[in-house]
Amino acid sequence: MAVSPAAGILRVLKGGGSLPLTPRRPAVEPARVGEAVPAFLVTTPASRPDLTLLFFHGGGFTGGSTAGHLDLCARLADAAGAGVFSVDYRLAPEHPFPAAVADCLAAYRYLLAEGHSPAGIVPVGISAGGTLVISMLLAARDAGVAMPAAAVSLSPAVDMLFLGESVLFNQETDWLTPNHLVGILKDYIAGHDPTDPLASPLYADLQGLPPMLVQAGGGEILIDGIAAFVSAAALQGVSVTFDCAEGMFHCWQAFAAVLPEGAAAVERVGAFVRRWVAEE
Amino acid sequence: MAVSPAAGILRVLKGGGSLPLTPRRPAVEPARVGEAVPAFLVTTPASRPDLTLLFFHGGGFTGGSTAGHLDLCARLADAAGAGVFSVDYRLAPEHPFPAAVADCLAAYRYLLAEGHSPAGIVPVGISAGGTLVISMLLAARDAGVAMPAAAVSLSPAVDMLFLGESVLFNQETDWLTPNHLVGILKDYIAGHDPTDPLASPLYADLQGLPPMLVQAGGGEILIDGIAAFVSAAALQGVSVTFDCAEGMFHCWQAFAAVLPEGAAAVERVGAFVRRWVAEE
Repeated sequence: MAVSPAAGILRVLKGGGSLPLTPRRPAVEPARVGEAVPAFLVTTPASRPDLTLLFFHGGGFTGGSTAGHLDLCARLADAAGAGVFSVDYRLAPEHPFPAAVADCLAAYRYLLAEGHSPAGIVPVGISAGGTLVISMLLAARDAGVAMPAAAVSLSPAVDMLFLGESVLFNQETDWLTPNHLVGILKDYIAGHDPTDPLASPLYADLQGLPPMLVQAGGGEILIDGIAAFVSAAALQGVSVTFDCAEGMFHCWQAFAAVLPEGAAAVERVGAFVRRWVAEE
Repeated sequence: MAVSPAAGILRVLKGGGSLPLTPRRPAVEPARVGEAVPAFLVTTPASRPDLTLLFFHGGGFTGGSTAGHLDLCARLADAAGAGVFSVDYRLAPEHPFPAAVADCLAAYRYLLAEGHSPAGIVPVGISAGGTLVISMLLAARDAGVAMPAAAVSLSPAVDMLFLGESVLFNQETDWLTPNHLVGILKDYIAGHDPTDPLASPLYADLQGLPPMLVQAGGGEILIDGIAAFVSAAALQGVSVTFDCAEGMFHCWQAFAAVLPEGAAAVERVGAFVRRWVAEE
């Protein structure tokens, strides 16, 4: 019989761990970026009005949604004391690269136009959304848009060539597979140059980017690329914090409701955000 | 070191299990019942327009929200081929019994007034929401409102006296504790008669209720009361199906994203609904 996570989940719940059934009831307000891009503002009683996490969800550029990440958004709101503005950017294959990057930049510009100070905005993304955080920052910098206070990239794909031994050697400890990566190349890159810096931030000029937290699992197949990106960023003068969680798999943070290591990772994101944003 | 569910979750994900990161992107439309009660309509590409699950979330009558149950709502929509109309009923202690029952009945009346046929509505609730499904049906019946096609009650609290040996003897296999039950009595019943049939359907005249699926975990502290309720319903002529999942804890269905037993339970709910609702 296959191992079920039931016993481990029960242990967490019995230990008073947070339940997906009874998170704080976040307020979820539908919003929109311009005419085309749906978004949601997720807030909890802990959310400061002057601090916004601009959130990009995961899902391999072809799936996922704010709805599927509401628990994570609410936990991030609590941990950082922020409102979370989550963007349902366009998805591949209908809308390949760079449609999602354009939507994410439009969302950042929208917040600025709405009167948010860049010093009160922190982009946060997970998986494909973690990539989009960096791509959006590069596009904003190149367009002369002011950088936000800081940025957080969780388990990002930073290299559409997917180089690094971890893609082969971490297959035991991750659920993400080389086949998933081939799918991203096919559907999102879709014949574009995979080394385009906006698609693969590993190959980008990273100068001028804001302080950044990069969080990844030591068991991820993507960890080698992520570690190379962190080195590149540091060498180019970016204030980058590398938070590598031993043994964890891709996007374990999204399981915070039932995984103590995920909840702890979300708390570290909150502490990072609070460090770089002025207190009230 | 405490057991972490990480290994079990990874096993599920590696087996191609559904990921919270990449559910189908459900459409989530804010709605409202009358002036006061917020609700959401959750649909997926599988949702038929003529079939609606009227959903009441869990959270011990004092917490929980549609937002915290969106993954479950989307899975129920897929499994049943229905739209899910989820009601953010009023919560205790600010609004004790019978405020939530009134809101749930208002929501059912609202769907009927909007032109839905009772034959295309199936109330579904989990935990406190599972109780509210039965309470709402009783209130509707007593008010002469037509019964829906069928009903689904997942891990309900049916007896506010919380009688039954399982409350003591299943504490090892459940995360719900007697203290949680005391909290419900204090905050939701709040001095009212705990044997009021609208609060404790175990003590109700159940005649005239529609076909009902009652699903519970064999490891729940509430299982004895639930089994007694099923017997009472059957003896009173209700077509009741008792689906008791061996060893499972309270509301394991809500963990369908990471728990295969939860996903299987949701599939059984879908099959039950399809059985009692005419095909398109």
